[in-house]
Amino acid sequence: MKKTWGGRFKKPTDPRVEAFTESISFDHRLGLFDLAASQAHVQTLVKARLLTASEGKKLAAGLQKVKKLLTSGKLPLHSSLEDIHTAVENALVKLVGPLGGKLHTGRSRNDQVATDFRLYLRYAVQRTVLTGSGFIGTLAELALREKDTLMPGYTHLQRAMPVTMGHHLAAYAFMFSRDMDRFLSAWKRADALPLGSGALAGTNHAFDRAMTAKKLGFKSVLQNSLDAVSDRDVYVDFLSACAVTQMHLSRLSEDLILWASTEFGFIEMDDAYATGSSLMPQKKNPDVAELVRGKAGRVFANLIGLLTVLKGLPLSYNRDLQEDKHFVFDSADTVTGSLGTMKGFLSSLKFNRDRMSRAADRDLTLLATDLADVLVTEGLPFRRAHEVVGQVVHYCLERGKRIQDLSDHELRKFCDLFPKGTADHLSVHLSVNGKKTVGGTSPKNVVSQVASLKREVEKIKRQIPKG
Amino acid sequence: MKKTWGGRFKKPTDPRVEAFTESISFDHRLGLFDLAASQAHVQTLVKARLLTASEGKKLAAGLQKVKKLLTSGKLPLHSSLEDIHTAVENALVKLVGPLGGKLHTGRSRNDQVATDFRLYLRYAVQRTVLTGSGFIGTLAELALREKDTLMPGYTHLQRAMPVTMGHHLAAYAFMFSRDMDRFLSAWKRADALPLGSGALAGTNHAFDRAMTAKKLGFKSVLQNSLDAVSDRDVYVDFLSACAVTQMHLSRLSEDLILWASTEFGFIEMDDAYATGSSLMPQKKNPDVAELVRGKAGRVFANLIGLLTVLKGLPLSYNRDLQEDKHFVFDSADTVTGSLGTMKGFLSSLKFNRDRMSRAADRDLTLLATDLADVLVTEGLPFRRAHEVVGQVVHYCLERGKRIQDLSDHELRKFCDLFPKGTADHLSVHLSVNGKKTVGGTSPKNVVSQVASLKREVEKIKRQIPKG
Amino acid sequence: MKKTWGGRFKKPTDPRVEAFTESISFDHRLGLFDLAASQAHVQTLVKARLLTASEGKKLAAGLQKVKKLLTSGKLPLHSSLEDIHTAVENALVKLVGPLGGKLHTGRSRNDQVATDFRLYLRYAVQRTVLTGSGFIGTLAELALREKDTLMPGYTHLQRAMPVTMGHHLAAYAFMFSRDMDRFLSAWKRADALPLGSGALAGTNHAFDRAMTAKKLGFKSVLQNSLDAVSDRDVYVDFLSACAVTQMHLSRLSEDLILWASTEFGFIEMDDAYATGSSLMPQKKNPDVAELVRGKAGRVFANLIGLLTVLKGLPLSYNRDLQEDKHFVFDSADTVTGSLGTMKGFLSSLKFNRDRMSRAADRDLTLLATDLADVLVTEGLPFRRAHEVVGQVVHYCLERGKRIQDLSDHELRKFCDLFPKGTADHLSVHLSVNGKKTVGGTSPKNVVSQVASLKREVEKIKRQIPKG
Amino acid sequence: MKKTWGGRFKKPTDPRVEAFTESISFDHRLGLFDLAASQAHVQTLVKARLLTASEGKKLAAGLQKVKKLLTSGKLPLHSSLEDIHTAVENALVKLVGPLGGKLHTGRSRNDQVATDFRLYLRYAVQRTVLTGSGFIGTLAELALREKDTLMPGYTHLQRAMPVTMGHHLAAYAFMFSRDMDRFLSAWKRADALPLGSGALAGTNHAFDRAMTAKKLGFKSVLQNSLDAVSDRDVYVDFLSACAVTQMHLSRLSEDLILWASTEFGFIEMDDAYATGSSLMPQKKNPDVAELVRGKAGRVFANLIGLLTVLKGLPLSYNRDLQEDKHFVFDSADTVTGSLGTMKGFLSSLKFNRDRMSRAADRDLTLLATDLADVLVTEGLPFRRAHEVVGQVVHYCLERGKRIQDLSDHELRKFCDLFPKGTADHLSVHLSVNGKKTVGGTSPKNVVSQVASLKREVEKIKRQIPKG
Repeated sequence: MKKTWGGRFKKPTDPRVEAFTESISFDHRLGLFDLAASQAHVQTLVKARLLTASEGKKLAAGLQKVKKLLTSGKLPLHSSLEDIHTAVENALVKLVGPLGGKLHTGRSRNDQVATDFRLYLRYAVQRTVLTGSGFIGTLAELALREKDTLMPGYTHLQRAMPVTMGHHLAAYAFMFSRDMDRFLSAWKRADALPLGSGALAGTNHAFDRAMTAKKLGFKSVLQNSLDAVSDRDVYVDFLSACAVTQMHLSRLSEDLILWASTEFGFIEMDDAYATGSSLMPQKKNPDVAELVRGKAGRVFANLIGLLTVLKGLPLSYNRDLQEDKHFVFDSADTVTGSLGTMKGFLSSLKFNRDRMSRAADRDLTLLATDLADVLVTEGLPFRRAHEVVGQVVHYCLERGKRIQDLSDHELRKFCDLFPKGTADHLSVHLSVNGKKTVGGTSPKNVVSQVASLKREVEKIKRQIPKG
Repeated sequence: MKKTWGGRFKKPTDPRVEAFTESISFDHRLGLFDLAASQAHVQTLVKARLLTASEGKKLAAGLQKVKKLLTSGKLPLHSSLEDIHTAVENALVKLVGPLGGKLHTGRSRNDQVATDFRLYLRYAVQRTVLTGSGFIGTLAELALREKDTLMPGYTHLQRAMPVTMGHHLAAYAFMFSRDMDRFLSAWKRADALPLGSGALAGTNHAFDRAMTAKKLGFKSVLQNSLDAVSDRDVYVDFLSACAVTQMHLSRLSEDLILWASTEFGFIEMDDAYATGSSLMPQKKNPDVAELVRGKAGRVFANLIGLLTVLKGLPLSYNRDLQEDKHFVFDSADTVTGSLGTMKGFLSSLKFNRDRMSRAADRDLTLLATDLADVLVTEGLPFRRAHEVVGQVVHYCLERGKRIQDLSDHELRKFCDLFPKGTADHLSVHLSVNGKKTVGGTSPKNVVSQVASLKREVEKIKRQIPKG
Repeated sequence: MKKTWGGRFKKPTDPRVEAFTESISFDHRLGLFDLAASQAHVQTLVKARLLTASEGKKLAAGLQKVKKLLTSGKLPLHSSLEDIHTAVENALVKLVGPLGGKLHTGRSRNDQVATDFRLYLRYAVQRTVLTGSGFIGTLAELALREKDTLMPGYTHLQRAMPVTMGHHLAAYAFMFSRDMDRFLSAWKRADALPLGSGALAGTNHAFDRAMTAKKLGFKSVLQNSLDAVSDRDVYVDFLSACAVTQMHLSRLSEDLILWASTEFGFIEMDDAYATGSSLMPQKKNPDVAELVRGKAGRVFANLIGLLTVLKGLPLSYNRDLQEDKHFVFDSADTVTGSLGTMKGFLSSLKFNRDRMSRAADRDLTLLATDLADVLVTEGLPFRRAHEVVGQVVHYCLERGKRIQDLSDHELRKFCDLFPKGTADHLSVHLSVNGKKTVGGTSPKNVVSQVASLKREVEKIKRQIPKG
Repeated sequence: MKKTWGGRFKKPTDPRVEAFTESISFDHRLGLFDLAASQAHVQTLVKARLLTASEGKKLAAGLQKVKKLLTSGKLPLHSSLEDIHTAVENALVKLVGPLGGKLHTGRSRNDQVATDFRLYLRYAVQRTVLTGSGFIGTLAELALREKDTLMPGYTHLQRAMPVTMGHHLAAYAFMFSRDMDRFLSAWKRADALPLGSGALAGTNHAFDRAMTAKKLGFKSVLQNSLDAVSDRDVYVDFLSACAVTQMHLSRLSEDLILWASTEFGFIEMDDAYATGSSLMPQKKNPDVAELVRGKAGRVFANLIGLLTVLKGLPLSYNRDLQEDKHFVFDSADTVTGSLGTMKGFLSSLKFNRDRMSRAADRDLTLLATDLADVLVTEGLPFRRAHEVVGQVVHYCLERGKRIQDLSDHELRKFCDLFPKGTADHLSVHLSVNGKKTVGGTSPKNVVSQVASLKREVEKIKRQIPKG
């Protein structure tokens, strides 16, 4: 295949080099964006009088036909075509003749790919935030439904204090809503047009870049052409948002895997969302959650991978930059796939409310902090109350007694400040309802949290970029 | 040293465990923030009537004294004290007696460290953005000063088109100004109070968290206590901003190292900013730039390090989180140090304008694209013009002639569309001045870019968080 | 402080540059290695007749005195001294006069630091492998002690088949014994002398490098001077061995954290190896295991950090390389610290044998695969047996019955191939003892595994590098 | 598609889950290894009398037919088939009927995939080391050819001392020969059979695992079944070897990119190994070297990615492990592709010997160290000689004179120890030839280095694993 840049070369490219350097096997995914950018470029050329109106129309119609070839899978995509840009131009020339050779006027693949890839980025942000909002919606609904479900809360994976499942699920919803803001904020920083930067220095032509930006839905125009073709920082932002999101997903997955174990037994998976073992007939495994957790590996790796590519590159464009797409495509697909699948997985779960509630209620010492707070209310400095209750805890563990089952007499052996009927005011239910301060685990607070989350989701959705 | 949590334990902690788990050797850096948060907590306790006004005053005065101990280097910081929180509480109790034991009422080290560390984060953002703004200012000034300095622009480290040094420096200034936005945007997402979340579930006390937030200068209150003590996502944002910044710095360093080589010879370092060799008497090395480039390693590593720590942790607090500070302190110090040192390094450079200009002017084929544009103006499709000029390039290379030295006769052997006096309109100077479109390398555009950068820096400075 | 390389410079180094580029604040840890290498270099210089015997003796005695200063903490280590090499040379000159200036003959800091750091690497490998061997020994002893302890084995954190705790612990011991081989194999590749390579090109002097290597205990001499001063690959090997080891430690930690939870309840921590909560009086947390798990973050980060530093550096020495020590010191300390602390943590654990055994025995379907194997023995293709038992599993779960409690009658409703008295041959105990093939979980195999591990440890210890 | 594990499930798998969890889209690459392992397993089953000899023959023949389907691209590989193991078993059952259901006896996908993937690993090591040896061979030949080619050697990218291109190329050859040892050493640690470990606990059957290992060409048998199905450490070793290799490749690429620049001009690329620009007609770019450098990003990322997957996983098998193949396939392909392409690229280069030699010869101060060595020979302590020559350097730079052009008179103004005719013994040529010590840059040494490299390559080739 003749190269677009072959004029100065006396020998054909070695096939090994062709195979090693081609990008069409993956950048064909930029096809529609390349066509959109080319359509805008045609108009820019017309306005700059580098094309007549009639030439512009012919090129636009030709590009429209190329689009049909692409969407119907008929656009040739051989590796000797190097990249999607060449594939499109070649097809265009075949359709409209030498006029097609005018399309690349004042444009380089350097600013072209930068533009195409930003259009892809916008699409990826749209897709992620839309899927993510739906996922947060599911979490919020489940949080509301399970607002009264008691369970032990954990620190260090040790039972710590009673909480509600609704509160636990809402915690994740808040994390993911920050993640959506990460994507939106990454896009805001990326919302500027590279096209018109040429290979590196700008162009000799009177391009109306503001018009091009408007046509393509960009908010502004990149103001320095070297910057426009050299940098990939906005993709690092995107990959970082992906990494934080998948990190949050890996934590949720860990919780679900724990809860699905026989030992915890807090949830039961639907048969449609679990998988079995080729050897052990009884197995029913949380593969979805495990894979989501495992995929944190590739999503983190993609972030560090792009940073590594960029490290130490002199300006301006270097071919190393071609490697950016590998990372971005993979993280975008993985995060969207994980959010979508996890939404289904969560919706299909059965929560074993009795089991959770019993786990909290039967724990011998889960109310230790509530007991200390009783002494605090009686005026004992907290540090001293903590010590006293530490000894009560010992007493309970040795005798297998729950704190809430201790008599006043027993309690007063440790401290005579314990008021009459102390234990009567201690229960898992009361403990949870006592956490009324903003942010606390009481069902009332969870209702407020869900309301706040829903407002947040609406706000997020309104900010999804158009185009 | 007696532990704050020793009540329930019958044996002292093994010294090896003490040494392995302590954090005071690094979290002492949180000292002032811990004291500020404790002062606010005292007021919260007073308002919640868990302290009398008089007790509040005594604690506040005690904390003030602890602050003096800290700033004068007299606060005991043994590793058996575990962490800065315990060190502060211990010192307080020594100063005010058992009343000191009331400070920790309704507070856990989990929400306390989350609060202290956010206050540190605000400080780190302030410091980075302030240093970074100064650095961008320097770049912008240099860009203005060198707006007419001609040099070859590079893609693939091959000479591509003439550009100006001002344009090149401005490219970096735009990158760093996006970086400052990264820090600010990271802080906006972090600008919410964890304190009042207790260990994980909220507290039993009527804390006015909005008041606490206001006292500490936070914009809002974290709405879910599990989220507040479990997540470290906002530090990933910060580390990601650090990584992108240091990546940009590594690229600038690479350019400077190239330019300082004998082969390029574009810049000369000041003796005060270069270092020598212990063996080779003639050496004058760009160590500053090399170290800045190398430090990308640790700054990228810190980002992936924190993500790794967080991967797969179940809610809520886990001790793994203690590792967050290692990464954040190191990246914050490295990025600020690099920005500050690089500012000095850049300011001290001598730009060899003649050498750069000659490198551009004497290049045989640097104006190839300008020549192709001549044909485009004459109506030849660009793709065809590219081919023609490819052959002209060959001709020049074989004869050692510059494009701008070709006669009309010579040119027309390749294509008869070349207008009369083609070469008269080709020069490095004209090429650069012809790039007038927004974003192009012409001195006029560089002046606009610098104006825009200065507005940007002002905008950035206005957004630096207070407090 | 006067620089060793100051001759050609007309201005003193800017203090900011001095602070930014110094390495003495961390490379002082190379002090003893620097002195050893310098002692060897003195002998090399004597043999090359660049020093007289008497000069050699004086320098050797001087270096001995510097060593005393160093070990007694009296060697000046100001940051203006740049690095430990300069600090040593400066102290030497103070002690022996201008003769000290002969020490650096034919040597550059480039080959000097490469040599010092390899000596450190040998020490780090020694220390890690010694600590690691002890740790494996502990695991092996525990494996032997718990060879009959029945517990459920897990895949996907779902109960899968009965195993023994001894088998589980031995699995880790095998992992760590491969890790020790990683360290040894890293050292073998590093066991060659850089000294004598000069700054980059070798030296003009007739150095007997083989003798120098022998004095310093290196097996061979690096054969290319550019390679010797440019590469840091052997430290990547070391960091990779550290990363795999800490990865294995993080998995063991995860198991221990799970087992220490109330839900699993398989182990109980000693008070001396657990820590509490500042707020919740009942807490007893596995902080050691959590920190070991969390520290995987920094150890992985150090590996990627050094790779990042090295990426794309041209030959030969570049100052970026100074960053290598940050990563290597931190991983070496972390891994050794983790292995040592974890050894103590494991030794202090109480295994709740009854609880584990009950968890296995009371599980309804843990013997499903054993039941399928009964049908296989009767000639049914395994795939069909799996299906049959899948239905038996359903039956058991619905009725809350254990597989081993089903009557022949019940079993034959699913398949008439079940032999008489099928259930009599099904028990957790029999299942474990039936896994007799090499590698299986039966106590007998565990005894063999432990024997093999002990041989392995002996073999590892014999390979620890001397010197 | 019916699942192999469907017996216990009442609902079909959700299509979204099927799509999210399938691995056949990438693990089909394990097909031939799966078939080899299955053939060995058939023999193991025959020996264990779980298959009759005749059944064994039928299964073996069936597997042979499946192999033909696979190699001719006719084996069905729908995503509902989950993975290659199921695809193979399904095809087998179609060919031989219910007997095919006996193949999986005593085997789990857990030990099966572990075995298949190790066989792939052996193949990947073979392929990499074979390609790598060829590459080292090319480097060694070029080193020999360019042993007399003078050039400036660099530290800090500043000219430091004269070296030969042969020495420079040999430096890389030594690095890559250590890399090959990394791959071989990784394989040695991996050379043990997982099959026979069952799902996690071993099997109830009397498998002769030593025989299985022999059939499959493994040196030994993994001795702990939990270890065998849980760990992926040997792939981390492989990925680490890949990372170091690609790091070395990135450095070589950087050197080549520098040398191909107009400023250095040390090499000229062949047209068949360079690519052009779609916009700038004169461009001829070192894209191969840039891509090789850039691909360090993905190869480093794959290493950290797998480590992240493994971090914190409890024993034994977890579905997260499925993600291992993504990283290993990509790094294996990238490294082999880079080594092979770079071999061609290097072979096609033209070295501009005159230009390099002139660059060294015309440098004003490249012989400064040689001049200092003159004073050392005269008895001046090196540190003092360094200072003196530092001043000479200044003198030369100010006057634009070369060191080797200074008269005795001029030299003695700086130090009267300079012997008569000092400059006569100073030349780039003499400097290079003077570096005679082992490892030095003299042509004679380079010849020895090449001889040593060739022996090394032979040794490496002999160790390539068979099978």
